[in-house]
Amino acid sequence: MAVVIKVKHKEKIMGRLRHGADLLGELSEICKKEKIQLGRLEAIGAVQKACIGFYNQEKREYQFITIDQPLEITNLTGNISIKDGNPIVHAHLTLSDSSGKAYGGHLAPGTIVFACECMIESFDGSLLERGFDQETGLPLWTVQE
Amino acid sequence: MAVVIKVKHKEKIMGRLRHGADLLGELSEICKKEKIQLGRLEAIGAVQKACIGFYNQEKREYQFITIDQPLEITNLTGNISIKDGNPIVHAHLTLSDSSGKAYGGHLAPGTIVFACECMIESFDGSLLERGFDQETGLPLWTVQE
Amino acid sequence: MAVVIKVKHKEKIMGRLRHGADLLGELSEICKKEKIQLGRLEAIGAVQKACIGFYNQEKREYQFITIDQPLEITNLTGNISIKDGNPIVHAHLTLSDSSGKAYGGHLAPGTIVFACECMIESFDGSLLERGFDQETGLPLWTVQE
Repeated sequence: MAVVIKVKHKEKIMGRLRHGADLLGELSEICKKEKIQLGRLEAIGAVQKACIGFYNQEKREYQFITIDQPLEITNLTGNISIKDGNPIVHAHLTLSDSSGKAYGGHLAPGTIVFACECMIESFDGSLLERGFDQETGLPLWTVQE
Repeated sequence: MAVVIKVKHKEKIMGRLRHGADLLGELSEICKKEKIQLGRLEAIGAVQKACIGFYNQEKREYQFITIDQPLEITNLTGNISIKDGNPIVHAHLTLSDSSGKAYGGHLAPGTIVFACECMIESFDGSLLERGFDQETGLPLWTVQE
Repeated sequence: MAVVIKVKHKEKIMGRLRHGADLLGELSEICKKEKIQLGRLEAIGAVQKACIGFYNQEKREYQFITIDQPLEITNLTGNISIKDGNPIVHAHLTLSDSSGKAYGGHLAPGTIVFACECMIESFDGSLLERGFDQETGLPLWTVQE
């Protein structure tokens, strides 16, 4: 069975990211400034360029792709939890180009904001901590049932 | 005019799905175990393979596509309501491959979790029941204005 | 630093849009009827055809693409704020076709609902107002830190 924890609503934040900022860096900075250790986030907007990751499940390593052109962010979905004692934003991104074609992947540094509107919700609850997961090679939540 | 109901927040759950589990089956199992009859859900992660549906609006039937390769889940969005007296998860999925190309559709059984982090919110309110909709051939909410 | 505001939960709405309605028009009408001035929304479903925008960052103008075929809505993500004194829905859309290929962009009028299930959350808080942004040419939130 999946492992789950119950969390309580704490705060809701709406915000606008800075033009030219690193998307992941900016989201991480908001969480740090607002002392968010557990939560979810979403965003829409546009980027000047994107750097997205794909996890190679066989080689157990991320491959990164740079898409060096303006793209719409049709969706960003993510969460905030703890890794190595610090809050970390884990987010995935869906993008689209001028022809409407869609792209996507794991949000990596190097994705530059053109304009971006985000919504962050923080929760109270047991902190979710990421630890090395043997089965996948990924830093997954070590929640116990 | 659209038909809408107001719902009240009940519980929030964050969870990690099991490696190798059926994505739709696992989400449905959490909802059953947590006795969720009304709610919304979202997830990100990766799958080992995907089975997604496209509703043929003319023939009024789902067509299913199997993508037999590892993919990122850039977004899963869904809801929980009642069909034939039981809670049912209805979710749509956006995926991406190693080149960053995106795919999507209606989440069907046969989509296998590599790693997946989900967020489920349950609500109190009038139960939303699905019934056969003449106009579309789909099991839609039979809410009355 | 990004500019953010804290908002408080007000109401949650789940709804079903009318077959044949304009997707953006219908979401805007619900917000108007329910007097929502600040909020977030999400949806899944299918459209008979789509009209989506891509912002040309260099020319500083939207380009619109019509995809004249049935598509699944794998995700709609958006927010509600104020523009020119009235509530406005800003939403981005991810779509997929019968082969599973994904498309996306800024939701524009001319996107026609086949079936659509939405979730809207309204907030109490300082109203977010859109004003002309010099840097991007877009009507962005003029929130002050």
